[in-house]
Amino acid sequence: MSKDKVQIFDTTLRDGEQVPGCKLDTEQKLVIAERLELLGVDIIEAGFPISSPGDFRSVTEISKLVKNVTVCGLTRAVKKDIEVAADALKYAKRPRIHTGIGTSASHIKYKFNSNKDAIIEKAVAAVKYAKTFVEDVEFFAEDAGRTDNEFLARICEELIKVGVTVLNIPDTTGYCLPEEYGAKIKYLKENVTGIHKATLSCHCHNDLGLATANSIAGVANGARQIECTINGIGERAGNTALEEVVMILRQHPTLGLDTNINSKLLNSTSLMVSQKMGMMVQPNKAIVGANAFAHSSGIHQDGVIKNRETYEIIDPADVGVNESSIILTARSGRAALAYRAKIVGYELTKIQLDTVYQEFLKYADTRKEVVDNDIHEIIETSGINIKALS
Amino acid sequence: MSKDKVQIFDTTLRDGEQVPGCKLDTEQKLVIAERLELLGVDIIEAGFPISSPGDFRSVTEISKLVKNVTVCGLTRAVKKDIEVAADALKYAKRPRIHTGIGTSASHIKYKFNSNKDAIIEKAVAAVKYAKTFVEDVEFFAEDAGRTDNEFLARICEELIKVGVTVLNIPDTTGYCLPEEYGAKIKYLKENVTGIHKATLSCHCHNDLGLATANSIAGVANGARQIECTINGIGERAGNTALEEVVMILRQHPTLGLDTNINSKLLNSTSLMVSQKMGMMVQPNKAIVGANAFAHSSGIHQDGVIKNRETYEIIDPADVGVNESSIILTARSGRAALAYRAKIVGYELTKIQLDTVYQEFLKYADTRKEVVDNDIHEIIETSGINIKALS
Repeated sequence: MSKDKVQIFDTTLRDGEQVPGCKLDTEQKLVIAERLELLGVDIIEAGFPISSPGDFRSVTEISKLVKNVTVCGLTRAVKKDIEVAADALKYAKRPRIHTGIGTSASHIKYKFNSNKDAIIEKAVAAVKYAKTFVEDVEFFAEDAGRTDNEFLARICEELIKVGVTVLNIPDTTGYCLPEEYGAKIKYLKENVTGIHKATLSCHCHNDLGLATANSIAGVANGARQIECTINGIGERAGNTALEEVVMILRQHPTLGLDTNINSKLLNSTSLMVSQKMGMMVQPNKAIVGANAFAHSSGIHQDGVIKNRETYEIIDPADVGVNESSIILTARSGRAALAYRAKIVGYELTKIQLDTVYQEFLKYADTRKEVVDNDIHEIIETSGINIKALS
Repeated sequence: MSKDKVQIFDTTLRDGEQVPGCKLDTEQKLVIAERLELLGVDIIEAGFPISSPGDFRSVTEISKLVKNVTVCGLTRAVKKDIEVAADALKYAKRPRIHTGIGTSASHIKYKFNSNKDAIIEKAVAAVKYAKTFVEDVEFFAEDAGRTDNEFLARICEELIKVGVTVLNIPDTTGYCLPEEYGAKIKYLKENVTGIHKATLSCHCHNDLGLATANSIAGVANGARQIECTINGIGERAGNTALEEVVMILRQHPTLGLDTNINSKLLNSTSLMVSQKMGMMVQPNKAIVGANAFAHSSGIHQDGVIKNRETYEIIDPADVGVNESSIILTARSGRAALAYRAKIVGYELTKIQLDTVYQEFLKYADTRKEVVDNDIHEIIETSGINIKALS
């Protein structure tokens, strides 16, 4: 079955960097941009050029650096922003301007003290103006997650008339449930005249832990771009995690969708971003956490040793992890102990294993983890007569 | 509208603790158990009694300690396991035995080298035997996520006949998509004779970042218990995060579901578990991450200052966080700078703000974060004539 491509729009360097303590200088941004191109992302959102001279320079330098990737600069729906972004993108082989405005009742009233017609007018003017500089213009309908679908469809339709290429439907506050977000995309696919002329894009936030599920619901209902960041970093609880959506599409062939990502680079890219930004990744983070492929309970370890697929749905090598680790704790069973004992050189008989296991449990109950070196001590204390093979 | 209650089954001390380096001693487990009771969980899974003497002791002591919460002990579908669990639970006011066996084709073949009929027989025998010790018996159909629905329904029906009280449908490998998991629960609700006599339970893993969405899909389709852990800790990429499912139900009244959790204790409970287990929580973790309520971009800060609801869906106080922090970086706008400047004592005019903001941007471009003390320096360097009010 030939699969439809979902564009990966990486915003690690824009929405991801927009985080307390994560700011990067231009040189750091260039190293990450180069890696993102290697990873296979389709679009790099490189920054918000008008926001500061440093950010302007980053967008300019990334535009010069990368070759096969679209470089995107963020703007508000404001002339000056668009001019500055166009200027920062002038060296890009494939420039994209990303402009937009809040469309929810709350944003229109409290942020802009405006009304729906005036918002549409501003949106159309911004896209038209951006189109005078670049062909590829993306529009974000900020807080689309809380915008009524009918009004959202109206804006989308007007923007398609003036040549918008991508329509970004952000769940800015991370409020939507997957069904709801999927239904929103479906509504736009079915109700916006000319929708085939633009790509619908998912931009989800993780405030309720649903960014990944919402993005998948979006593409399952017709969106063909996901905006995401490495490690899911970003404002507040962060953005959709790139590594999660990429691996879901790869592990679920029935969705009929795939990306251009080289998944073998996911783990090393995660490490690079985490180190450069000083944003640690928790051990239990999906796909890229230190424990993502570590088994410690006896029941699970027994299963993995018999057949990896009983507990692992992803081959660790596919995301660039060398091997799944079998870690020993007081929750580990005989199979895991025997497995690690064998690695450090002891082929235990069943009877020997019973004896060593009792000793192991006493030992493990007083420690968080039992490492390979401890195994020698445990076996010696247990009193069985065996020597490690070298 | 009166809401249906979803039982919160906390397995921080069992599945959560089953993690490399997270092992707790009995005293630590008691402190956490006491806190979980205060938090309002309905069931505490206290351990796997046969797995080690330390774990046996923990289940015994927790059974003595807590008063209004069900205490649960895990077993395999093995007589000895069940006897030991019953013994460990003997002081519990509300004891529950949680027994089970793998039901997917992969588990039946590779783990047990068995067949479907033999698996049903073992499952029925285990539940019957557990019922001789306690009234409340939960059964887990391990790897239910990859078990065909028809076979799963057959097992559930047989177990209801022998008095099972809770049917746990684990997505052990974290493979399911929300739609698929929801459909599985729906299938059981509609096809198992006598299903109203037992509670269906969601036990989801986060290998693809979908544990929370899958659990919500489960309760939306008729399950009435969620198995989860504080901070989503657990084997590999962890379990469903308690704080996320609780807040989704609370923020989405249209689901018509709620829990007994006192959400104001979520943040402090997260901290306690993270410290005791030595498992750090990433800053961009939903609900309990350090940045979950921190705004740093100019656009967002401007909105939050005008009206909190433009970007915040949860009042931080509802989860025990004192106030959302407005943090200054080179991405921050004038509104945020003015806001923090006011907090440290400067009421800037618009013209003064323009001048100070230029100075601020130069300063911020060289730093990850601008703290309150830096503001005095920035204002002095900018050359405007203003003194901080005290």
